[in-house]
Amino acid sequence: MPEGHVIGRRGRAEAGEDYLRRHAAEIEAASARIRPYVRRTPLLTTDLDGALRLKPECFQRTGSFKVRGAFNAVLQLRHRRPEVPGVVAVSSGNHAQAVALAARTTGIPAVILIPFDANPAKVAATRALGAEVIQEGVTFENREERCRRVMAERGLELVHPFDDWDIVHGQATAAAEMLEDDPTLGTIVVPVGGGGLLSGTALAAKARNPAIRVIGVEPEVADDARRTLETGRIQRLERAPSTLADGVRPVAVGERTFEVAVEQGLVDAIVTVSEEEIADGVRAAWLRCKLALEPTGALPLAAFLAGRVTADGRPVGLLLSGGNADLGLVARLLQDR
Amino acid sequence: MPEGHVIGRRGRAEAGEDYLRRHAAEIEAASARIRPYVRRTPLLTTDLDGALRLKPECFQRTGSFKVRGAFNAVLQLRHRRPEVPGVVAVSSGNHAQAVALAARTTGIPAVILIPFDANPAKVAATRALGAEVIQEGVTFENREERCRRVMAERGLELVHPFDDWDIVHGQATAAAEMLEDDPTLGTIVVPVGGGGLLSGTALAAKARNPAIRVIGVEPEVADDARRTLETGRIQRLERAPSTLADGVRPVAVGERTFEVAVEQGLVDAIVTVSEEEIADGVRAAWLRCKLALEPTGALPLAAFLAGRVTADGRPVGLLLSGGNADLGLVARLLQDR
Repeated sequence: MPEGHVIGRRGRAEAGEDYLRRHAAEIEAASARIRPYVRRTPLLTTDLDGALRLKPECFQRTGSFKVRGAFNAVLQLRHRRPEVPGVVAVSSGNHAQAVALAARTTGIPAVILIPFDANPAKVAATRALGAEVIQEGVTFENREERCRRVMAERGLELVHPFDDWDIVHGQATAAAEMLEDDPTLGTIVVPVGGGGLLSGTALAAKARNPAIRVIGVEPEVADDARRTLETGRIQRLERAPSTLADGVRPVAVGERTFEVAVEQGLVDAIVTVSEEEIADGVRAAWLRCKLALEPTGALPLAAFLAGRVTADGRPVGLLLSGGNADLGLVARLLQDR
Repeated sequence: MPEGHVIGRRGRAEAGEDYLRRHAAEIEAASARIRPYVRRTPLLTTDLDGALRLKPECFQRTGSFKVRGAFNAVLQLRHRRPEVPGVVAVSSGNHAQAVALAARTTGIPAVILIPFDANPAKVAATRALGAEVIQEGVTFENREERCRRVMAERGLELVHPFDDWDIVHGQATAAAEMLEDDPTLGTIVVPVGGGGLLSGTALAAKARNPAIRVIGVEPEVADDARRTLETGRIQRLERAPSTLADGVRPVAVGERTFEVAVEQGLVDAIVTVSEEEIADGVRAAWLRCKLALEPTGALPLAAFLAGRVTADGRPVGLLLSGGNADLGLVARLLQDR
């Protein structure tokens, strides 16, 4: 761990002011950079609970917050290394569509590696955005090695789904908008997979006001981030988790998230929810909040409904990360109440 | 038909400027009056089509636009006739909850007559808002007579679901907000039942700019408003229609809607959609727009997707009126693609 960093857990330790100031400037620059390309989603109040403020990133372009980081990373790449002929990404989900859109918009090709057994609708959506999709022989296990080979053969640059500061600063813009729209937020709750959204949110919130609580939510069956925060060391899942929340399948948080959450102590807590609680969250999103969320996007709502996150007198912001649900799955969830 | 009114069809005739100016002032007053009590819903863009602007009144308090008119009517009543001891309404749907909330908020009792065979969830929601619900022996057929009896016995004032200028001006505030958020809208599309929303929208839009097209959408099986506009006389359905869009079951438009739409010629067209097109609209709302809409709320989207409403180079605003769907019904719709 770098010298001079304050090691903190649950946000009690102070992060260096310079550290926060530097990242806040990067987040502000990212906001300006991506503004022409992403949507300014609203901050909603809801009858469900007067304390809640909902950031529905399901309304974001391509249906998830992922375009924020993807546009920031691709635009930065185009600026810093205009000679790079294109980008590559590994994803079967929202990151794939986000990178495809960012590449097409900035006029470079994108190659996306998607495991052969992925949801055909998501593959079609990625192709519709102009990306070249490679599926043949790609598995969850070999996809990173396959990716390195494509990079080497074609000179393409990787757009990592989370462990990259440009991605982190891009994802941070969602929380920055929440705090612009309601500066009184006392808590911001986000889903955690690889942690790009969590670390970005923590940087945006704590730079503005260290008293804002930042809470990550992950499925019980994918509790590596919670254990990472509690032990102070990166914990890995033994295999990709089987969970309704298929957007948070990375087996460990990235190094940048570890730095922000653990070394800098900027994340206050990671809480977990059961699969049944996730299903309850999806149902409540539909019935009570009128939002079509994918299970991953409903994680913060699930945590609030399960009492894992409580209001402290100040409003609670829930960052509802996306809405690209499998229709059949959601139809089943809605019937199973 | 009153002397001196310009009879118009499809908006070709000019409405009197004084008429529009007077109603515009009432709409502005209604906006100010209800502002503390209703939500300012956003105007959303969507990947589905770049021309669309969505006004998601599913996020409105109680889940539909109906609170706009209900608050305006109840607040006006409290101001003009403070001696009235309470209000009564007849509704098994969104108007019931809207009147219940407006009455509770302004501190007077509300009695709501709901047919005995109504959806128990909606009855419970109305009771939860503090209203007294009368169901025993109430049918779709006898409910207006029962209502008159309750009014006479208890001295209560009726809050009509649509045929009342205070209701019309309250509902008009939704379109006024749309035009504040995007003054370039060329078309506004709304569901039509009794026509309170349609006539309010027409007044708000045409007062601002007569070149804004105002289009109503109703189910094919409930096409009385279309026939009313085409014939220039109020047409009635023989019975309450059986349609997925259960929010537009009135058998005829109100007299005020007739005045605005036909006599003043302020509605450009009424289009119809089939039940299958309504189902497609609900599915597209979920899948493409990430909105949980009730079938009535999806009527404008259904009309757009079916090609009944087309863009003319200017953005098209869809007023998505509510989201209080029956969960089982929606789950079936989502599975039936």
